[in-house]
Amino acid sequence: MSLQTTRDTCLARDASDPLRHLRDEFALPDGVIYLDGNSLGARPKASLARAREVIEAEWGDGLIRSWNTAGWVHLSRRLGDLLAPLIGAGSGEVVVTDTTSINLFKVLAAALRQQQSTAPERRVLVSERDNFPTDLYIAEGLTELLKMGGGAAYELRLIDSPKELPQAIRDDVAVLMLTHVNYKTGYMHDMAGVTALAREAGALTVWDLAHSAGAVPVDLHGARADFAVGCTYKYLNGGPGAPAFLWVAPHHQNRFWQPLSGWFGHARQFAMEPAYTPADGIGRFLCGTQPITALSLVECGLAIFRHTDMAALRAKSLALTELFIQLVEARCGQHPLILVTPRDAAHRGSQVSFEHPQGYAVMQALIARGVIGDYREPRIMRFGFTPLYTRFVDVWDAVEALRDLLESGAWDKPEFHQRGAVT
Amino acid sequence: MSLQTTRDTCLARDASDPLRHLRDEFALPDGVIYLDGNSLGARPKASLARAREVIEAEWGDGLIRSWNTAGWVHLSRRLGDLLAPLIGAGSGEVVVTDTTSINLFKVLAAALRQQQSTAPERRVLVSERDNFPTDLYIAEGLTELLKMGGGAAYELRLIDSPKELPQAIRDDVAVLMLTHVNYKTGYMHDMAGVTALAREAGALTVWDLAHSAGAVPVDLHGARADFAVGCTYKYLNGGPGAPAFLWVAPHHQNRFWQPLSGWFGHARQFAMEPAYTPADGIGRFLCGTQPITALSLVECGLAIFRHTDMAALRAKSLALTELFIQLVEARCGQHPLILVTPRDAAHRGSQVSFEHPQGYAVMQALIARGVIGDYREPRIMRFGFTPLYTRFVDVWDAVEALRDLLESGAWDKPEFHQRGAVT
Repeated sequence: MSLQTTRDTCLARDASDPLRHLRDEFALPDGVIYLDGNSLGARPKASLARAREVIEAEWGDGLIRSWNTAGWVHLSRRLGDLLAPLIGAGSGEVVVTDTTSINLFKVLAAALRQQQSTAPERRVLVSERDNFPTDLYIAEGLTELLKMGGGAAYELRLIDSPKELPQAIRDDVAVLMLTHVNYKTGYMHDMAGVTALAREAGALTVWDLAHSAGAVPVDLHGARADFAVGCTYKYLNGGPGAPAFLWVAPHHQNRFWQPLSGWFGHARQFAMEPAYTPADGIGRFLCGTQPITALSLVECGLAIFRHTDMAALRAKSLALTELFIQLVEARCGQHPLILVTPRDAAHRGSQVSFEHPQGYAVMQALIARGVIGDYREPRIMRFGFTPLYTRFVDVWDAVEALRDLLESGAWDKPEFHQRGAVT
Repeated sequence: MSLQTTRDTCLARDASDPLRHLRDEFALPDGVIYLDGNSLGARPKASLARAREVIEAEWGDGLIRSWNTAGWVHLSRRLGDLLAPLIGAGSGEVVVTDTTSINLFKVLAAALRQQQSTAPERRVLVSERDNFPTDLYIAEGLTELLKMGGGAAYELRLIDSPKELPQAIRDDVAVLMLTHVNYKTGYMHDMAGVTALAREAGALTVWDLAHSAGAVPVDLHGARADFAVGCTYKYLNGGPGAPAFLWVAPHHQNRFWQPLSGWFGHARQFAMEPAYTPADGIGRFLCGTQPITALSLVECGLAIFRHTDMAALRAKSLALTELFIQLVEARCGQHPLILVTPRDAAHRGSQVSFEHPQGYAVMQALIARGVIGDYREPRIMRFGFTPLYTRFVDVWDAVEALRDLLESGAWDKPEFHQRGAVT
């Protein structure tokens, strides 16, 4: 961007954007600029007809028979195979199931147990203090539970900056658990470099791809990662709370055991045996019966990615975030906004976060004007850019709305300071 | 029933059935007699419009705002409050979330940990060998995980008959985990009596209500039970794989801790604190983000119960199962069918199971004729009766179809012996 950027030059960029037709796949409401696909992705148009088919034909008419005839029994694996290419994984390595929190519990337990059998002195999980809280809570829950056994305790070692990683990953570390792109700052780790660091130190790596899958190129095989989890309701546009995903490196799959060993993970599910025998491969990371209606809609989001590739999406994503940063700094520069997202593209996901002393109220006022981002404690306004449907002119208009609010002080009204259940 | 029962007397019973209008709430396909509501409940007609509202208006137009404006953030608790009266529970005691397997893991871990703090010598979980397999697998997964701590191991003590309960519940028992109505036989435990036995022995009780909720009267408070889990996709007609439920006795809620401690269970979810503080009450049994589309449809199933009560449903359920047993024995008596469901109404759920040496093929042939029950290893044909929509004439017609198949031998064709992924 240069100082010559205008609304018209943004419109021109949209007109020549090779991905512009992908926006037609989404049902976006009029009068809204949606910059929160990093929290809940927009609705693929196809989802309504698919829901009708699942509810009327598969559930209503097919009834119990649809477990076979509509393929419900294999749906978690089939969707996993569709998702795999977006994260550098192969067929038979991914399942779409349960929630990110639950899946994290499975892989953390699997990793710790595996380490215990070969390196029982490794009793530390390393993560970041500003990792997404549920990741830390799940690690805490698992380590608390393991204290019940009465043996040596596990410790959660939290670092305050990625720079501390080399010192933190010592020979007492069992597992390194990181979120690839930070939910708050948008900072993106060098997955290959960090994974190599962990592997050399003898630690297993668990990557949370909640803010990566569908947003930035991910190469789990290339990085030689061990485990990954993530969600489908952000950049993959699977629907509110849509089931999450879980990946295990193929050479690990049959070595690992996980404790949420429900019947969908059994080698012979319908033999109804009283003892558990894990299925071969990724299937052993399944647990209970999945919410088929919600699970089915994940396919509508994944299908859109067939029309493009992650390299093209990344190029547009960086162009959008770059433009947003430059426009905010050029046009709102006199206001107390602090960029917390890396300027270095190599460390930036597909969101941009700015701190503002009254970030909550400013964001509520923006939302009231139809520019939807969100807020995260403390003081952070988040703006997510989804190259599948965000236009360059949306960036321009969003910055103008922000500028107008800050100039006029119109954000400083009681209603914008009031807190909802979800902030 | 007497020998005078005919198709016409069945039609007459339907005409005078006070619950007959409830069938109008369901979309049942033509040409089908559906006797598998114990596996997947039929579709409430209201579910299609509700799905459209959730997908188009709440997700598509409301986008991220719907967490507040459409009440998504409280949906698990709100549905729990609607479900509570059906199981003898109160408001604020139930959540609808995750799967039965996952919820069982939560409450088993909570119960064991509580016992450990006051009675660490109690290291046994008692259950039945023919409990639903996933329940046993989850107990096995938890006890395997706890071995990692390196302390004293937990043991799973499986009994082969309810008669063994008094001997099995000794002073080393931490938890008694039972399914109230057996998935295979339809045997129903005396919940109050068994719970009293456990309580006197110092054990905590976990009841799986998968085949009870909406099918038979349940009084968790009256029985003084400790924990319960169950599913919403059988007799509650919540949709395929719809999220499950979890109940904790109110006097226990704040004493218990569970290890799947995701952010939805945190006391201050959006404060984004790095350490976990459990919410007060039942909220601490929530974990991750729920599949909103599927979760929302649970309400359509629950709403139908407002037009009736469990006593009326139980009376009709027993009349249906009684009629089925008597007609099968009267009209198919010369064939090798063995009733495995108790004749004693006090110990019968809302299903009837018969063993047949070729049960699998006979059931496939029945299904091909539009009489849908299902099959469970070994040799068991299951027939579920849902008093909300099953008619007396359906019972007559189902038995006539069975009789015709057995008389003609038309079930003995290669295609009926072929196994699907789901049996």
